[in-house]
Amino acid sequence: MAEYLPAKNIEARVEGVYWAPHGTFVSEPLDVVSLTYAGIVGDRHSGLYRDSGVREPWYPRGTPMRNERQLSILSAEENTEIAGVLGIPELKAEWIGGNLLLSGVPELSQLPPRTLLMFPSGATVRIDGDNGPCKKSGASIAANIPGRPDLEFGFVKAAKHERGLLGWVEREGEVRPGDLVKVRIWEQALYTA
Amino acid sequence: MAEYLPAKNIEARVEGVYWAPHGTFVSEPLDVVSLTYAGIVGDRHSGLYRDSGVREPWYPRGTPMRNERQLSILSAEENTEIAGVLGIPELKAEWIGGNLLLSGVPELSQLPPRTLLMFPSGATVRIDGDNGPCKKSGASIAANIPGRPDLEFGFVKAAKHERGLLGWVEREGEVRPGDLVKVRIWEQALYTA
Repeated sequence: MAEYLPAKNIEARVEGVYWAPHGTFVSEPLDVVSLTYAGIVGDRHSGLYRDSGVREPWYPRGTPMRNERQLSILSAEENTEIAGVLGIPELKAEWIGGNLLLSGVPELSQLPPRTLLMFPSGATVRIDGDNGPCKKSGASIAANIPGRPDLEFGFVKAAKHERGLLGWVEREGEVRPGDLVKVRIWEQALYTA
Repeated sequence: MAEYLPAKNIEARVEGVYWAPHGTFVSEPLDVVSLTYAGIVGDRHSGLYRDSGVREPWYPRGTPMRNERQLSILSAEENTEIAGVLGIPELKAEWIGGNLLLSGVPELSQLPPRTLLMFPSGATVRIDGDNGPCKKSGASIAANIPGRPDLEFGFVKAAKHERGLLGWVEREGEVRPGDLVKVRIWEQALYTA
């Protein structure tokens, strides 16, 4: 018989909201973000569709596909942990292109795909799954910490399974720092077949 | 430390493709279905967006949301198993509104959310997660098996965790009976935090 972990709810808090409007990877803090079905309008990862890239080696590069990577969702606790491993004072969400920074979710990056993040405005984000750390993020951190070129590769190793989540907008609405977030985790089958 | 199940691939086969064009729950077999970003055009579950219903008690009924339930994906083996438990000769995919009937995936309904179904045409379906059996399906089965009104409720019990999967179209393309399907299962964290 299959084993199932039961559904559960967790409460989290929004610590920051960000966008990356300028074609650059680095994001900037905002007082509020408006989530639409296409993501954060004007953000470099917005869109209902996108072209496939290195993360989808099973498709020819540039294949049109649905955009399940609209938002980068980060954990304040995981970022602090990564900073500790790397021996740097802090890891800013902006440096690694975060859109939503949350606190209060243990092991945020391990939340199962399909998890819902429900915000007070009525906005909901559906989680596609965990993100993989890349050298581009590492280089962005290194650019902010003088004398530590090792961070480019160091981040990739230190952030494994702690690089946050990707998701897309299920319901439109605004998100602000200070918002309390209802995190709904579905019953989870352990697929060992 | 977290436990992770490794990523893996499984090969499956398409046993049938169906649509439900007439506003009715029951589906009809086709020689081919064309999957678009909005699902199967003309099918009752097609659309990029939908209104929330009883399955989303956390939203007011009728709330606009993204449609993650475009396709009902069923397992030939699970349907046979359910039929055995119910003591009926067969459980047709059409009776319970299936769109894609697959064989060859052990415990299909337990596949994790985010799993990809990749078809020879280039079409890909991304799995949202498992479906829950409802009385409407049970009533539809009962309507096809004379003298067994108990099937309406019996199905809901017998099909728990075997009701197949829901998903949406990640890449457009056609799907035909006989197609071989590459099933890509992502690394799966067991979220016990």
